[in-house]
Amino acid sequence: MSRGPGRDELVTRCGRTQALMEAMGLDLLLATTEPEVRYLTGFRTPFWQSPTRPWFVLLPLRGAPHAVIPAIGEVCMERCYTASIRSWPSPAPEDEGVTLLAATINELVSGRCRVGLAMGPETHLRMPLGDFATLKALLPGVIWRDATRIWRQLRMVKSEREIACIREAGQRTCDAFEALGAYLEPGLSEIEIFRRMRIEALQAGVDDVPYLVGGAGRGGYGDIISLPTSRPVGTGDVLVLDVGATFDGYHCDFDRNFAVGQPDAAVSEAYRQVHEALDAGLEAVRPGASCADLHRVMSTVLRGRGGGRDAGNVGRLGHGIGMQLTEWPSITDTDDTVLEVGMVLALEPGLVFSGDRAMVHEENIVVRDQGAELLTRRAPPVIPVI
Amino acid sequence: MSRGPGRDELVTRCGRTQALMEAMGLDLLLATTEPEVRYLTGFRTPFWQSPTRPWFVLLPLRGAPHAVIPAIGEVCMERCYTASIRSWPSPAPEDEGVTLLAATINELVSGRCRVGLAMGPETHLRMPLGDFATLKALLPGVIWRDATRIWRQLRMVKSEREIACIREAGQRTCDAFEALGAYLEPGLSEIEIFRRMRIEALQAGVDDVPYLVGGAGRGGYGDIISLPTSRPVGTGDVLVLDVGATFDGYHCDFDRNFAVGQPDAAVSEAYRQVHEALDAGLEAVRPGASCADLHRVMSTVLRGRGGGRDAGNVGRLGHGIGMQLTEWPSITDTDDTVLEVGMVLALEPGLVFSGDRAMVHEENIVVRDQGAELLTRRAPPVIPVI
Repeated sequence: MSRGPGRDELVTRCGRTQALMEAMGLDLLLATTEPEVRYLTGFRTPFWQSPTRPWFVLLPLRGAPHAVIPAIGEVCMERCYTASIRSWPSPAPEDEGVTLLAATINELVSGRCRVGLAMGPETHLRMPLGDFATLKALLPGVIWRDATRIWRQLRMVKSEREIACIREAGQRTCDAFEALGAYLEPGLSEIEIFRRMRIEALQAGVDDVPYLVGGAGRGGYGDIISLPTSRPVGTGDVLVLDVGATFDGYHCDFDRNFAVGQPDAAVSEAYRQVHEALDAGLEAVRPGASCADLHRVMSTVLRGRGGGRDAGNVGRLGHGIGMQLTEWPSITDTDDTVLEVGMVLALEPGLVFSGDRAMVHEENIVVRDQGAELLTRRAPPVIPVI
Repeated sequence: MSRGPGRDELVTRCGRTQALMEAMGLDLLLATTEPEVRYLTGFRTPFWQSPTRPWFVLLPLRGAPHAVIPAIGEVCMERCYTASIRSWPSPAPEDEGVTLLAATINELVSGRCRVGLAMGPETHLRMPLGDFATLKALLPGVIWRDATRIWRQLRMVKSEREIACIREAGQRTCDAFEALGAYLEPGLSEIEIFRRMRIEALQAGVDDVPYLVGGAGRGGYGDIISLPTSRPVGTGDVLVLDVGATFDGYHCDFDRNFAVGQPDAAVSEAYRQVHEALDAGLEAVRPGASCADLHRVMSTVLRGRGGGRDAGNVGRLGHGIGMQLTEWPSITDTDDTVLEVGMVLALEPGLVFSGDRAMVHEENIVVRDQGAELLTRRAPPVIPVI
């Protein structure tokens, strides 16, 4: 597969963004985070992991985005979709791009104007709070508006290229789980198993495995966001690996459960139940259904066996996936987001059993006209034994 | 090696933090980002990659930290160093922990008080901007103060355990580079080489390779923050891999250069020059020297051959490393940070040659009484040929 969005996709994205900006009465949109900057320009580098430098992209109502970035990013940004690139020598802690950003905003939209940026749920501003205060003081004519719903609406529906990337990540991670199955045996430590999973996934063709959590516990596991420990897995354990692997910058996010030795009846039954709940979720996916509908359908199946309690306090039965490991929407009973063709979701039903043990199961799908299309290969209906 | 900081280290950290808070006149410190929360409590999970939920930790002037977190983190946080854990069911976009955080702040420090949080260079607030505005409105008695210099001072000097983790990451990545050397041959694509490097590093024992950038170019490379492409490397290329690998949550960050086939004189000479500049930097490291001193010493060597121009516009000749890929301080001519025993640095001299080609070289060190101790194995003085 060729890498990165082509120019056409970026032009389409910016055009769509501008239509939403216009509808909201915005004159300019300010992007400061990795997915926002990448969405508009195609700019991609792991360098975001360094907190030293902020990066800014401004989208006016017409034309391509304007980049205001540290000089280290110039060469990389020149390959992206921009109308202009302005840069400053960085690090420069006394003025880390703030006056250059203010000057660029003044140039693009002079006088009183409305600038949108993400201020709502699941967002943050990736620049120092003190610098944002300075920016506001430098631009007294600007009215700052929350543009969260623009980003949400844009990014929830994926292009066929984005879907193909997530499918690639999902399929190759399924290959890796198959290879891992042959390697697993009692006595290996969680750390050894997780390291092997990372290697198998890379060998199967994913670009990276940024997210890998889980662990094993006697008769079931307790939480699902922990790192592996040096504890060896033993007979009677349930092992879970929850994997966010990437291909070309897009994440799959799903888990697989294994019983070490023959599972007891409670484990088998809990697994069967989350598997059935997931089947019910798959059946319920269609354009026009809401996230709350999916939640109701899956929780009805789960409630049969103590699934009324929220496994691992996850707080939802799934979520969007894409450039980030988790994205809008959330599959909760209060999320009224209506499913649209092209949305990509992780369905993630879980339940609590045997007191405080959790069982969580997850697959990735894309919403199609006719319903759910799996991007991962469906886990077996009976818990695999190692 | 055992994993995570022990209770003693966390108690020491919090005590030190409280002394600095007292000196600055703060009543409470608010942590919202991964390294801040981890520094105070030992809490570690890759779940921070999900942007859905904010996490808060409050440190008063006495005692252990108080966690205010989404319920999904309870079990994991119970294993950490806290005086109390309060949680809310999340996702809850209409009130994502904000009123619980306000109530907890009111409980810990009632009435007029000073709450510190990071607002300065290299920081950001990891919660929605709108929620922070709500929080401020809920707490009219609070004066919010910038606590950046507290975090900087605390985190710049590492414990022996932290240094051991960075050394482990560095040594194992050196092992991986040796293994990679045997694999490299003309005709492999950058993507294949980078994938193999990730696998070799995992096999050598690092936990993960979150940062891996670089690439190859005829007679030298152009920038150093890019992802690998599908272009095959060929005779005459210079290949660079810049690796941030982790062990127990701590990063090494260094690069290695390779010539594909016999390098021309310009490449050999550029490599020799950055290697010499790094040697000069190693010599200059001692407690009491400043970052500006290190910068001067290395740039003097570089200036001999066009090194006056900033290779790749990196803007500095090194930086701190630790829980994050890059940390304070910066090795620039304006950073007057004085080196202290226990600081861990990446020395990273670079130059521009043959017009627009960059050559960047990097090693990791810890500042000791007697000078620099290498945490990576010194690269050969002549560019390796593949």
